[in-house]
Amino acid sequence: MPALTAIRENAFLAALVGGFLRAPRQVNGLQESDAELVRLPGTAGLLALTTDAIVEEIQTGLYRDPFQIGWMTVMVNASDLAAVGAEPLGLLLNETLPPDLDAAFLAELQRGIAMASRAAGLPVLGGDTNIGSHLQTCGLAVGWVPDGQPMTRLGAAPGHLLYTTGPLGRGGAYACQALLGNAPRTSGQHGFQARAVPSPGPDLDFRPGPRLHEGQMLRPFASACMDTSDGFLPTLDQLMRLNGFGFEVSADLESYMDAAAARVNQPAAVPPWVFLAGPHGEFELVFTVPPEREAAFLEAARAQDWRPLRLGHVTTQPVIRLRSGDRYLALDTGRIRNLFSEVGGDAAAYLCQLVDLGHQ
Amino acid sequence: MPALTAIRENAFLAALVGGFLRAPRQVNGLQESDAELVRLPGTAGLLALTTDAIVEEIQTGLYRDPFQIGWMTVMVNASDLAAVGAEPLGLLLNETLPPDLDAAFLAELQRGIAMASRAAGLPVLGGDTNIGSHLQTCGLAVGWVPDGQPMTRLGAAPGHLLYTTGPLGRGGAYACQALLGNAPRTSGQHGFQARAVPSPGPDLDFRPGPRLHEGQMLRPFASACMDTSDGFLPTLDQLMRLNGFGFEVSADLESYMDAAAARVNQPAAVPPWVFLAGPHGEFELVFTVPPEREAAFLEAARAQDWRPLRLGHVTTQPVIRLRSGDRYLALDTGRIRNLFSEVGGDAAAYLCQLVDLGHQ
Repeated sequence: MPALTAIRENAFLAALVGGFLRAPRQVNGLQESDAELVRLPGTAGLLALTTDAIVEEIQTGLYRDPFQIGWMTVMVNASDLAAVGAEPLGLLLNETLPPDLDAAFLAELQRGIAMASRAAGLPVLGGDTNIGSHLQTCGLAVGWVPDGQPMTRLGAAPGHLLYTTGPLGRGGAYACQALLGNAPRTSGQHGFQARAVPSPGPDLDFRPGPRLHEGQMLRPFASACMDTSDGFLPTLDQLMRLNGFGFEVSADLESYMDAAAARVNQPAAVPPWVFLAGPHGEFELVFTVPPEREAAFLEAARAQDWRPLRLGHVTTQPVIRLRSGDRYLALDTGRIRNLFSEVGGDAAAYLCQLVDLGHQ
Repeated sequence: MPALTAIRENAFLAALVGGFLRAPRQVNGLQESDAELVRLPGTAGLLALTTDAIVEEIQTGLYRDPFQIGWMTVMVNASDLAAVGAEPLGLLLNETLPPDLDAAFLAELQRGIAMASRAAGLPVLGGDTNIGSHLQTCGLAVGWVPDGQPMTRLGAAPGHLLYTTGPLGRGGAYACQALLGNAPRTSGQHGFQARAVPSPGPDLDFRPGPRLHEGQMLRPFASACMDTSDGFLPTLDQLMRLNGFGFEVSADLESYMDAAAARVNQPAAVPPWVFLAGPHGEFELVFTVPPEREAAFLEAARAQDWRPLRLGHVTTQPVIRLRSGDRYLALDTGRIRNLFSEVGGDAAAYLCQLVDLGHQ
């Protein structure tokens, strides 16, 4: 089988941490779980720790609304705790505020943090503020896995069923709208014009909810789990690399595409799978369930009035195949993951090249 | 007695967190301890959590050397764990890197982090990197207090003895050198010229060591503890406000001033106490010990070949008095804490006004 395309970001991260001492009490290796997992002396439990910042999203104009910036500062971190199935303990904040930041903007930013903190049940424990030329916000979330049995990205095996906590594609559709609204007209090889993306209706909002309850609920059932913070296809790609198996996504795209995202793509003739490509994702969980646990899992979900979406299954071959209409796309997800950085972060060029990839 | 000068930063922080839910498991209130303290379900222990970033230090040119930036990213966080007496569990990093950052600079930054992580026994657990226009680094440290009895900033009472883990003033002297080397000549009311500060010898370096061992050792003995990350006088001021008592620093300045800092001030005629004023401190611990525990504390310190420095004692009146030669300065430390922000962060103006304050 062909070698997988090397992922630029993974290679960069491996080099960055090359000289670091790993912690003796840490149970996960690099990139093996969405949160770092640390055994506490004298207890059966594991701490789950994660940090994520809102930087590029602000500097590129992807997030402009201060409430949204605050909300996402909490949710990107809550999402990592959810993916390991941890109980939330709390959040630290580290905010860099420009000296001339508007007071009303700051108040809205803090309100977004406060509301998301309540929605996620992730109280703010403390933090740090700094004065800097560019606004950015960083969160650090702490969770607890009392029985020491977290979910990680490892454990998927052929035949396991592939699920998601909710509809996919909204993060990608939102990013297209936000970044391409005023972009210059760019054309791909197949005549697709990136400028044509903006939706006919009101703008999509983007304010994903916490998945912490779902993460805790599915912890006894899932064999592997990862959040879609970087998009659905990059998530599958990372799970494929770590587990050495592939995925066949056999569900109808319509059955799991976010309804608002689907409305965005139609008039512009963007193939809907493009919104699954990241790098801006929707912060759902993608997870695998061994077939023998599926009935119990679905019953537990039903008891909480929650309907997880079944997408497909794990395959022996490390390839990602996605059904689109009556055919399967075999997507080079490694190529897709590198593409945004290869085009220098130009959203229009990225979209055109993505569409072209689907024609190959 | 006169009302204490309101601290701008404290008021700002109180407003920032006004809408936040406090965590039910958190045992400390706002600003009552250097790290946030969280009770873990089913255990006797407390988690200690803190975050600190290197932002202004980079943007103002206070830290230019990449190794130093990496080193300090770890140490500013280790210092907060030390101040509550926690055992270090690990560190998360969140780095914002400019897209054109020099590879050699980045390698030195990471080496500084790696070396400080080893020196502090604080392994890197994981982290996040972002692309942004301005370099900044953020750390999040996690520690553990197994018996659930941390040190906090509360508990100092009149008659308790005031100690520091090591010499003071190097952070202030370093900042004067780094920020005023090329500053325009500025004069204070008493003819002091800020330009005259640079030392005659080689530049002071600034690479404070970890105080985690000392913090754990003194935990059974100290009644209150705080690190001097913002300078010695601001630390005393904060302890005074929280405890409702003052401090008399009766030791000879020479007995606790950093030797290199003392050499900096002499030719320039900077009164040495100015280097204790912050806002850039030296990352020692300042703590109080009830007199009945002093002998046992000193014996425990001696057993580890460590000589803490005795500075003075806690007084009933909430005033800070500092011996300088044969007189006592009664310093308005609230005024001093606000001064740097009042002069818009102008280091030369700050230094001149500080010197003038000592003449009042």
